Amino acid sequence: MEIALFIFDKMTPLDAVGPLEVISRVPGADVKIVGKTAGSVRAGHIGLTADHAMGDVTSSDIVLIPGAADMSHITSDAEILDWVRAVDKTTTWTTSVCTGALVLGAAGLLQGKRATTHWSAIRQLEGYGAIAADERVVTDGKIMTGAGVSAGIDMALTLLAEVAGDDHAQFVQLMTEYDPQPPFNSGSLAKAPDAIRDRALALFA
Amino acid sequence: MEIALFIFDKMTPLDAVGPLEVISRVPGADVKIVGKTAGSVRAGHIGLTADHAMGDVTSSDIVLIPGAADMSHITSDAEILDWVRAVDKTTTWTTSVCTGALVLGAAGLLQGKRATTHWSAIRQLEGYGAIAADERVVTDGKIMTGAGVSAGIDMALTLLAEVAGDDHAQFVQLMTEYDPQPPFNSGSLAKAPDAIRDRALALFA
Repeated sequence: MEIALFIFDKMTPLDAVGPLEVISRVPGADVKIVGKTAGSVRAGHIGLTADHAMGDVTSSDIVLIPGAADMSHITSDAEILDWVRAVDKTTTWTTSVCTGALVLGAAGLLQGKRATTHWSAIRQLEGYGAIAADERVVTDGKIMTGAGVSAGIDMALTLLAEVAGDDHAQFVQLMTEYDPQPPFNSGSLAKAPDAIRDRALALFA
Repeated sequence: MEIALFIFDKMTPLDAVGPLEVISRVPGADVKIVGKTAGSVRAGHIGLTADHAMGDVTSSDIVLIPGAADMSHITSDAEILDWVRAVDKTTTWTTSVCTGALVLGAAGLLQGKRATTHWSAIRQLEGYGAIAADERVVTDGKIMTGAGVSAGIDMALTLLAEVAGDDHAQFVQLMTEYDPQPPFNSGSLAKAPDAIRDRALALFA
């Protein structure tokens, strides 16, 4: 099972590492960390290593595209979009977390497809012809998208169940002790207190 | 607010990146990614960059120690334990995720303290004189410990509320869309189906 995780400068690190922690536990996983070029990328406060240049990874069973606060440097990069389209032709699952969905959209893969993204990017997603769904994990054919940042963990468990079975997914949930107990109930626009929601929405007004 | 995140070879990447995503959003955070030496470490399937050698970071407001499946190369490293003890003298919060708690224990910081770790390492934690608590996040004085892997996100939100207030923690929860919806209910020994629990426990028998 080949898994290609695309990483890039300014990305949100949890978008990648949350699902990586889960999906890399597919038995026999061959994980490739892929960048536009091989080498270090800066994901906010931490550097991550792209072991492979995208030109050297021309196929994969699963491809996963994480997001960032601003995706314009990726969605406007024709070479990256060409790579995403080419790899997608070879995948059994093409997946994204957070605003990574905008890359799938810009690559033309979401036309008429149900998909999700970070709550701040729903309108942009629709701009690519996607049918935006206000759900944590959305599957449409072989495209699986997760909502913002931390949703990548839920997306990856859902994906893991598809490729390795429910029992293995539950085993990995136990090994990663994913028994979430957030100290607040503020993780969605619907659940956050009004003042918190308004502060967050103001960033995107 | 100085935050020192210690990283090392063979570590579990989500142990570090989950809490990093949250706690780095303290207003004015000065995050330092620290290794035994500066340079790349291999965290399972992904390389992370230590921007600083531990010798160059002698104090921090917060220190965070992630875990790994096997911690013996860290808990037996006198230089690392010396560093943890020295930095702890300067912190307002000394924290761990998963088996990172064993490093705090080996450094002598958990004698008589309530603490938690990955479910598989509870007995080892008690071996360091800690009072093991079967809770997701445990605070005892300035020591805050999180349970296994994904618990670092809950730990960091709890910590963020302490250092930046409940409102800011809720804002960060919304920005990271931390509204967990795992597809299964298998994240703890108590909740996992019997066969899944037995398979996991057998790894540590």
